[in-house]
Amino acid sequence: MNRFFVRPEALRGDRVTLGADQARQVSRVLRLGVGDRIVALLDGQELEVTLDRVGRAEASGLVTARRPCAAEPSLRLTLALPLLRGDRSEEVLEAVSQLGAAGIVPFTSERSVARELSAQRRARWERIARESAETARRGRVPAVEPLARWPELFDRLEAPVVVPWEEETGPTMWGALDPTATQLSLVIGPEGGLTAEEIALARARGARTVTLGPRNLRSETAAIAAVAIALAVARA
Amino acid sequence: MNRFFVRPEALRGDRVTLGADQARQVSRVLRLGVGDRIVALLDGQELEVTLDRVGRAEASGLVTARRPCAAEPSLRLTLALPLLRGDRSEEVLEAVSQLGAAGIVPFTSERSVARELSAQRRARWERIARESAETARRGRVPAVEPLARWPELFDRLEAPVVVPWEEETGPTMWGALDPTATQLSLVIGPEGGLTAEEIALARARGARTVTLGPRNLRSETAAIAAVAIALAVARA
Repeated sequence: MNRFFVRPEALRGDRVTLGADQARQVSRVLRLGVGDRIVALLDGQELEVTLDRVGRAEASGLVTARRPCAAEPSLRLTLALPLLRGDRSEEVLEAVSQLGAAGIVPFTSERSVARELSAQRRARWERIARESAETARRGRVPAVEPLARWPELFDRLEAPVVVPWEEETGPTMWGALDPTATQLSLVIGPEGGLTAEEIALARARGARTVTLGPRNLRSETAAIAAVAIALAVARA
Repeated sequence: MNRFFVRPEALRGDRVTLGADQARQVSRVLRLGVGDRIVALLDGQELEVTLDRVGRAEASGLVTARRPCAAEPSLRLTLALPLLRGDRSEEVLEAVSQLGAAGIVPFTSERSVARELSAQRRARWERIARESAETARRGRVPAVEPLARWPELFDRLEAPVVVPWEEETGPTMWGALDPTATQLSLVIGPEGGLTAEEIALARARGARTVTLGPRNLRSETAAIAAVAIALAVARA
């Protein structure tokens, strides 16, 4: 069955109403009609919908079954992702949205090269997050949060906050994570790394630094690896 | 200290001789001279070299210390990587060379879209593997092996061979791996997936199928995640 992410306002009582773009896809691209079924995805739930009106501008139907989406991880994982040069942030966003991240907080810190997330680039990020969640058959689109600067990041992230840091030689990422945790925030440094002052501030705010191993990883590789490992540790 | 991967023939007795490209980098770019030290990397060993001849076409010196490179993983991990469309294989190659893969076996299978690895593209792969290993401060460049077709892959890969497969719902990747293993081969399917016949052949040849979780991952995301998780499980 075809799957569509819908907004909360698409559901009224037992009726799901798709907007113009999705209605066009239903009627023109997929050539579905009255009596056909689709899955509407809302807030981690799968709603099975039998279509009873299919038009060019709107399609709607009644919910006939409702279940939690089995593909959503039990760990609510937020990734604080630095703005990286070129398309590197977008590569990470695509991968971690498939892997199961619940939210992305873009940020800049002292050594960041890219400093602004334009409205156009944010729209691209949101599209990538949605399309990757669809590819992965998830029940939720990762939220792309507003841009943060380093200090305010720690007002915004849910505890526990874990920071893989290339100068940490002690606790490993896989040793430091609690397999039974239901939430986790990961912070990845930018191309130029995090400064000792930034790490001191993070620790003062309760964050824990860990190592991803003795090899020096580029930011985008570290981000994808850290998210993959965290979800594996949580068996999520 | 600056680090240079050298070929076996660069070492004669206690003398390391760099070729023209590296000599030019030593003398022109880094402006090193007689008495300066570099690290030559050969087969997982770090050789500390004190330069005693520095010229435009050749630079050489004597080995003053020799140690295993601490950044090389204890797990010898081979990744069988399908030829993917566009630059997707190259993205994977870059990430897994940083993460610690020992070798890459490019392959094609029934549903592969790309079918040939041109000499030019192979040279690009080799350059990416070397540069990524340098970035990661590794002691070894991952070997890019000759292209294999599906059946011969299983003549070439070291056991145990583990195949993350989207239709597997049983054993997880992280549950199936032996943390004390010293070698492992991972096989990732192409964009269109592996066929039931290909999986049957792999199993008949001793490979084990596992799941990376309930989310549907693109090949490149699955490859990076699987390598990151395997090295994390091995604490390597």
